[in-house]
Amino acid sequence: MVKILAVNAGSSTLKWKLFEMPAEKELAEGLVDRLGQPKANIKVKYGDHQVYKDDHPVANFGEAVTSVMDNLKNLGLVKELHEIAGVGHRVVAGGEEFTQSTVVTPEVLLQIENLRDYAPLHNPVEAQYIDVFTKAMPWATEVAVFDTAFHQTMSPENYLYSIPYKYYKEYGARKYGAHGTSVRYVSKRAAEFLGRDPKHLKTVVLHLGSGSSITAVQDGKSVDTSMGFTPLAGITMSTRSGDIDFSLVAYLMKKLDVDTDEMLHILNHDSGVLGISELSQDQRDLKEVEFENPQAKLALDIYANRAAKYVAGYASVMDGIDVLAFTGGVGENSDEMRGMIIDRLGFLGAKLDHDVNVASHGVEKDLSAADAKIKTLLIPTNEELMIVRDVFERLPQ
Amino acid sequence: MVKILAVNAGSSTLKWKLFEMPAEKELAEGLVDRLGQPKANIKVKYGDHQVYKDDHPVANFGEAVTSVMDNLKNLGLVKELHEIAGVGHRVVAGGEEFTQSTVVTPEVLLQIENLRDYAPLHNPVEAQYIDVFTKAMPWATEVAVFDTAFHQTMSPENYLYSIPYKYYKEYGARKYGAHGTSVRYVSKRAAEFLGRDPKHLKTVVLHLGSGSSITAVQDGKSVDTSMGFTPLAGITMSTRSGDIDFSLVAYLMKKLDVDTDEMLHILNHDSGVLGISELSQDQRDLKEVEFENPQAKLALDIYANRAAKYVAGYASVMDGIDVLAFTGGVGENSDEMRGMIIDRLGFLGAKLDHDVNVASHGVEKDLSAADAKIKTLLIPTNEELMIVRDVFERLPQ
Repeated sequence: MVKILAVNAGSSTLKWKLFEMPAEKELAEGLVDRLGQPKANIKVKYGDHQVYKDDHPVANFGEAVTSVMDNLKNLGLVKELHEIAGVGHRVVAGGEEFTQSTVVTPEVLLQIENLRDYAPLHNPVEAQYIDVFTKAMPWATEVAVFDTAFHQTMSPENYLYSIPYKYYKEYGARKYGAHGTSVRYVSKRAAEFLGRDPKHLKTVVLHLGSGSSITAVQDGKSVDTSMGFTPLAGITMSTRSGDIDFSLVAYLMKKLDVDTDEMLHILNHDSGVLGISELSQDQRDLKEVEFENPQAKLALDIYANRAAKYVAGYASVMDGIDVLAFTGGVGENSDEMRGMIIDRLGFLGAKLDHDVNVASHGVEKDLSAADAKIKTLLIPTNEELMIVRDVFERLPQ
Repeated sequence: MVKILAVNAGSSTLKWKLFEMPAEKELAEGLVDRLGQPKANIKVKYGDHQVYKDDHPVANFGEAVTSVMDNLKNLGLVKELHEIAGVGHRVVAGGEEFTQSTVVTPEVLLQIENLRDYAPLHNPVEAQYIDVFTKAMPWATEVAVFDTAFHQTMSPENYLYSIPYKYYKEYGARKYGAHGTSVRYVSKRAAEFLGRDPKHLKTVVLHLGSGSSITAVQDGKSVDTSMGFTPLAGITMSTRSGDIDFSLVAYLMKKLDVDTDEMLHILNHDSGVLGISELSQDQRDLKEVEFENPQAKLALDIYANRAAKYVAGYASVMDGIDVLAFTGGVGENSDEMRGMIIDRLGFLGAKLDHDVNVASHGVEKDLSAADAKIKTLLIPTNEELMIVRDVFERLPQ
């Protein structure tokens, strides 16, 4: 029995979960938020709905890690820190170098830093945290778990853009995708849930959260995905635009007199359902007013439209679809959005059991009508579990 | 019996066709190319395979029109110019103002000029030519025929981007599409060919030429199309990229140290199958070497892949597809590309009669296998005929 930590680090927030393995038992989860501010936001949920809170200032990544380690001990989650045999780190960009989760060595750490071009706001921070954890717990196995790795099985036909080939060779210009850890978990669970061999299953995973992606999984491998070089591309998201004509972007840059970085900010943070509705990025807010607010309704319609179009497109990539699996905050909880998407996929033979769909939130469930030709499932994602599984498999024997 | 001229004008080229109406008889076609150069390229094809050529310099748009009129008389295509009752002008951008072909008035001409933001290289030139023709043949009815008009029946769900709504209201930021005149012609002919009422038909028109687009036509109306704010978006083309993650474009602009206009040039002129193959924009060249040149094969595969994904996506928009109609230079002549695309649409029930497909080029034909569940047709486009029909309908009674 060992304990393993799953870490999801951003520039001002460190999230973690502690598991007991191989039992896959979740012992605690926590976060350290508002780094560098006068009051931090430190929280740990553990045991029987117990919550610990603290707001003492946390100046930097090193202090954030110290704070996590102190709380693990002080709250009795570990007797001594040596019980933690491994730490798994979510890393956004793995480029073509990383096709699976990888034990961190100094060379691996350098590679992660060198991939900063692909995720300038994420990879440098994640590399620094890996370094801090390595020094704080030198006995533990540190594993980098890449958002992109699962999609490295895509073929060039699906990952290349129709631009000069030399940009791919020289600058790595291609589709990398994201949400890979979630999609890997969900597609595997979908097959298990159905008692089917993933080797003979064509699954589309709809990871619908604040970031949203659609992925085609065939024979257990990602064959195509809607996010692109970065998570900006693909379907409509909470605040991201998804696909857009670059000529329009260039035209708007002139009209608005903004530069590339400002335009990237608009398309990442002011767009999506928030941009269309001019009201909220939260679909629940839009649902509430959809009958009196046409833009709110339009935002939901467009979101469903883009998701359904991508799913349909992947039927051409895989020559059909056996299973649709909804996951992510929206996919797990919005029966309305699931209904709107599946309504647009009737031509594939997808059909919901209305009552089951309406009643199902956040639990594994077959949502399909009895006469549906393809299965529609609800599979809550669990990226942290996938991360600690990857770490556990890589612990020294 | 009247004669009507269809005009397709660019900054250095004026193409025209002369029809006799209502017989829809094509009398002649010609072009005036290389305006402003020491030697122009003037050509007229007429009668029984007769060809007239000339290379006297043509300084400007006015001289180009004079040259056309002189040739019409000198070659005996008209006895006097007054026989020409109307001139139809292809106009690239019609915005939301023009939902159908429109008789030109001074106000209409001004509106076309004012839409220059949407097609800076085309609308100003086309407006100038309309002006020159109006002055040269004041008796004729001048009609503007817009590439975008047919797509104005799209719903907001399909034409809006997922960006701040105010950009649509203030700057007209939305999908306009292109190839509308061709798609209108082909979708109508497809229904006639099948003896079906277009009101009850779900057709996808694959206009595959050097510019390529996919359009969903339901009840005789365009409901969605792959080109966007401009013709840059959508599927892979000869030299245009089609859809691309804007984050990647921003990244490449930094790496290549180019500005927005230079990047637009790269994505419009150096990309598509030319960019991927690094060999040719002509699919025939790629087909010839596909076995020894992996990039040539990749370019063809990606082209077919993107076209098929869009077609499949439109099955979700129309809740199924009844008819696929191939048109355009590639669509009409490349049985190989038609085969590659239909191979990716077997899940829809599309299936070619192999022998018929291989034998059919540039003629109306049902290409479907006997056991196909949806029809695949070859329908050569005829934009000029559609243009002169629109003019004929609008002649004063």
